[in-house]
Amino acid sequence: MKDIVSLCKRRGFIFAASDIYGGLNGFWDYGPLGVELKNNLRDRWWKDMVITPPIGPDGSPIEILGVDSAIIQNPRCWEASGHVGGFCDPMVDCRESKKRYRADHVFVLVPKDGEGFSFAFDKDDEDDVIEKRLQKLAKGKKVEDFERTMLDQIDPAEFGEIIGPDVKNPGTLTEPRQFNMMFHTFVGATAGDENKAYLRPETCAGIFLNYKNVLDSNRAKVPFGIAQVGKAFRNEVTPRNFVFRSREFEQMELEWFCEEDEVPMWFDFWLEERTRFWESVGIPKSELHFLNVPKEDLAHYSSRTIDVEYRFPFSAPDFDELEGIAHRGCFDLTQHQEFSGTKLEYFDQANNRRFLPHVIEPSTGLTRGVLALICQAYTVDESRPSGVYLDFKPSMAPKKAAILPLTAKEDHVPTAQKLYMDLREDYNVDLDIKQNIGKRYARQDEIGTPFCFTIDNETSKDQSVTVRHRNTMEQERVSLDNVKAFMKEHISKA
Amino acid sequence: MKDIVSLCKRRGFIFAASDIYGGLNGFWDYGPLGVELKNNLRDRWWKDMVITPPIGPDGSPIEILGVDSAIIQNPRCWEASGHVGGFCDPMVDCRESKKRYRADHVFVLVPKDGEGFSFAFDKDDEDDVIEKRLQKLAKGKKVEDFERTMLDQIDPAEFGEIIGPDVKNPGTLTEPRQFNMMFHTFVGATAGDENKAYLRPETCAGIFLNYKNVLDSNRAKVPFGIAQVGKAFRNEVTPRNFVFRSREFEQMELEWFCEEDEVPMWFDFWLEERTRFWESVGIPKSELHFLNVPKEDLAHYSSRTIDVEYRFPFSAPDFDELEGIAHRGCFDLTQHQEFSGTKLEYFDQANNRRFLPHVIEPSTGLTRGVLALICQAYTVDESRPSGVYLDFKPSMAPKKAAILPLTAKEDHVPTAQKLYMDLREDYNVDLDIKQNIGKRYARQDEIGTPFCFTIDNETSKDQSVTVRHRNTMEQERVSLDNVKAFMKEHISKA
Repeated sequence: MKDIVSLCKRRGFIFAASDIYGGLNGFWDYGPLGVELKNNLRDRWWKDMVITPPIGPDGSPIEILGVDSAIIQNPRCWEASGHVGGFCDPMVDCRESKKRYRADHVFVLVPKDGEGFSFAFDKDDEDDVIEKRLQKLAKGKKVEDFERTMLDQIDPAEFGEIIGPDVKNPGTLTEPRQFNMMFHTFVGATAGDENKAYLRPETCAGIFLNYKNVLDSNRAKVPFGIAQVGKAFRNEVTPRNFVFRSREFEQMELEWFCEEDEVPMWFDFWLEERTRFWESVGIPKSELHFLNVPKEDLAHYSSRTIDVEYRFPFSAPDFDELEGIAHRGCFDLTQHQEFSGTKLEYFDQANNRRFLPHVIEPSTGLTRGVLALICQAYTVDESRPSGVYLDFKPSMAPKKAAILPLTAKEDHVPTAQKLYMDLREDYNVDLDIKQNIGKRYARQDEIGTPFCFTIDNETSKDQSVTVRHRNTMEQERVSLDNVKAFMKEHISKA
Repeated sequence: MKDIVSLCKRRGFIFAASDIYGGLNGFWDYGPLGVELKNNLRDRWWKDMVITPPIGPDGSPIEILGVDSAIIQNPRCWEASGHVGGFCDPMVDCRESKKRYRADHVFVLVPKDGEGFSFAFDKDDEDDVIEKRLQKLAKGKKVEDFERTMLDQIDPAEFGEIIGPDVKNPGTLTEPRQFNMMFHTFVGATAGDENKAYLRPETCAGIFLNYKNVLDSNRAKVPFGIAQVGKAFRNEVTPRNFVFRSREFEQMELEWFCEEDEVPMWFDFWLEERTRFWESVGIPKSELHFLNVPKEDLAHYSSRTIDVEYRFPFSAPDFDELEGIAHRGCFDLTQHQEFSGTKLEYFDQANNRRFLPHVIEPSTGLTRGVLALICQAYTVDESRPSGVYLDFKPSMAPKKAAILPLTAKEDHVPTAQKLYMDLREDYNVDLDIKQNIGKRYARQDEIGTPFCFTIDNETSKDQSVTVRHRNTMEQERVSLDNVKAFMKEHISKA
C-alpha cells in the first residue's frame, strides 16, 4: 500500500490535502491524473445509469433520472432520516496516548485464565505486531492464551484491566461515548442552534428530497430510478487506509423505486448489473466478494443488503466494502412524508391506487472506486525501468495515448504536434517532448497510458510511427493515416 | 424572471433545496434537465481548458493541468489567503422588521433641504416602488428632493434619521458590523477553536495549495495553468436572484502562472479566449459587458481586473457579473509560502533563476453560467402551444433529440425504441411515448430539445421519419438511415 500511495503522489494522482501545511487528517486532493481517472469513472457510471440505462427484464430500457442536490439541506431532513439522533460511532479516548479509537475498530485479548491484564489492538494490526507486543508486555503469554473480543462488547467496568492499543499501562481508556459523525455548520449570521445545519453524510437524502419534484416534472412511472454523484462528509474518528475511509469523499448513488412485490426481482437485477459494471471498468470478479449482510448487522430499515467487497491491499487476503446494495423498504419516503407533511405517495393510474414505492439502493464510493482501480492496475514488473506499471483498461486510463517525438530537434516535434492536435479532439492524449525516450516510456508506464506513439527519423520517410503497447512493451509500426483507426479500435473495445 | 424560475421548477431544471421542507434560503438543487445542462457547460469548460487547451501566441498549444481539491482544507490556508481576517460583508439589522441587510446593498435618499427623515431602499427596488413609498411616508416630497447615497457611506451617527427599507419608523437600523462569510465547521470530536475549519469560499485556494505538487509531479514549465471545477460556499447575508447569489454554488477557475513581464499579453489572451468561450456556448457578445474594475474597487492584491458581465433579466438593462478576469500578482503564492514555510519558487533552468510566477485568474461560476444559458435561451413565442421555448445551442441542450412514436400502438413504438437505442450511445436523447404529439412537442420546446423525430404511419412504408426543428417548427422528412448523419451534422457544428 505504501508503494501505491507514494506513486500516487509522485505521478500526480492523489495528494494529501493542504500538503504544504502538513495536511489535514482524512482529506485528500486529486492531482492532474487523479482527477481524469475520477472523471472517467464518474462519467462511465453516469452514462451507464442515466444516459444509457440498462435494458429491463421486459426488454425495454429502464428509466433513470439524474439530480444534483445541495450538500447543505434543511436540517429537518436529517431528523427525518435518523442521522441527527443516530448517526453515531462509539468512541473511546486513551488518557495516556491522547489518541482516539472507534470502539468497534479495537479488539481486546482477554486472558483465558483470568490472570493479568487484557491487551487492546487496532483491528488492522498484523499478527507479528500482536506477537511482538505480547512478548514485551505479557510475561510469557501467547495469543492462544487469550480470548479475542471487540472493545464495544466489553463491560466498561472492566476497562481498568485493559492496556490500550498504543500504551503500556492499564486503565487509560475512557468509557465509550456516542459521537455523531455529521459535520455541522451554521447558516445565517448567528451560530445558534436555530441556525445549525449539516454537511450531508450521504448523497441519497438529496434524492428522496427531490423524489416528488422529479416525479412531477418528468412524469416518471414506477419503476424508475434517480441517480446522483456528489460529495459527502463524515467526521470519522479514525480516517484510515488512504482515501478508503476519508472525511470528505464522493458517492455515486442510485435509488430505484419499485413496487414491494417486485423487490426480489429488481434486487437480483441490480446485483448483476453492478457486478457487470465493476468488471467493465477493470475489476475482475475474482477480486470481488459478495457479503450477504447478516440479519443482525442490517440497518433497521433494511431487510436485505449485499456488500460488494473488493480485495484491497490493506484488507488482503480479505475484502472490504466497495459498494452496498440495500433494500431500504419505504423507510425514507415514509419518514420524509411524516416530517415534512408533504404527501409523497405515488399514484398508480392504471390500478387507481396510491402507495409509497419500495427502494433498492446500489450505493458506491466514487473515490473508493478510484482507489480500487489504482490498486487493481498496480503491477510490479522488475523487467522494465519503472519497475511498475498501471494496467488500467484503456477506457479508464487518464491518458489514452502519449505522443513522443524521439528528439526535440528536427521535424519530430512539428509532426508530433500535428498528431497530438489530430487526436486530442477525441481522446485525452499527452504530448511529451522532454527527456530521453526511456524515461518518457517509464513515466507513461507509471501513469498507465496504454499506447505510446513515437515519431522518429523513419517517420518523415515512410509516414509511419512506432506504437508501443504498455503491458507487453511490444512495438509495431502504424502509418500516420491509421493512428485514429488504431485508437478507435483499441479504446472502444476496452 | 418569475416565469423563468417557474419553468425551471415545472420542467425539472432547478428546484429549491429541501423543497418539501419549505426550502432553505440560498440553496438550490438541480433536477434531471438542470444537471445535464450543468454537466454540458462543465464538460465544455474542462475540455476547452484541460483536454484541448487553446493555442498560445507562439502557435503551440498551451499547458493546463486539472485538479480536484477538498472543500475542507487546513484552516491555516485561509489565514494565509486573508479570508479568516477579511472575507467580510458589512451588515445592518433592522430592529423593527428583524430583517438583515448588506450595507452595500442598501441606498438611502437623504433630503436635500436637511428637513425630515431619510429613506432606505434595497438597491434592486424599482422606480415605482420608490415613488409609492415616498408618496405614503414623505409628505409630498419626491425623488428629486433627495440625494442618493449608499448606506455604508453614511455616518452611523445619522442612522437615527433613517427609515429602514421595510418599516415606517426611523432609527431602527443597527450600526453596520463586519460579518465573515465563510461557513465554519469542526473537524474531530470536539467543537473547539483548535478544531475549527472552513468550507472553501472559492475553489482557487485549492489550486495554489497544489501548485508545488502539480509542478513536481508533472514537470510543468512556466507559463502553465491549473484548472478546477467544484463547489464553494458563502454564508451570504442576503442570497438573491435565484441561483445567481446562492450560499452553495459551483465555480470553474483557472490560475494561469506566468512571468511578470508577460502579464499584459496573457491578460489580453485570456480575455479574448473567455469571450470566445461564452459566445461558443450561446451567449452573444451583444449581451456581454466588459467592466474594467476601477482602481479603487480592486482587491488589494490585484492591479487589473475585468468583469465579464451578462445582461441578466434581474439586472437589465444593466449587467451583472458572470466571470472575473483578475491579475492577482504573486500575492497568493507569496502568502502561502510565508504561512506554510514551504518554498514555492519556480526554478527557471534556462536562466538559472528562481521566482514566484504571477497569476492571471479567469474565474467564473458554473451555476451562474447555467443561469445565463437559461435566461439567454428563454424565448417567448405566443404562436406555439407552449408559449415559450428554450433556444439552447444544440451542444448545450440537455436533450439533443426526442424520439416520438406518433401513437403508443402498432409498430410505432418498436421502431422508436430501435432509433432511440441507435442514437443514445452518442447523444443524450429522450424517448417519449406518452400523451398526444402536440403536448410532447410543447414539452420538448420548453426543455429546449433542438430536434424531434416522429415515427408515424409513413415510417413503416418508406423508412423515413419527420424531423421537427425547435426554433422554426419546420418539419422535414429524413430517412431512418440518415438520422445519425443528420445528428452529427447539426450537433457538431453548434
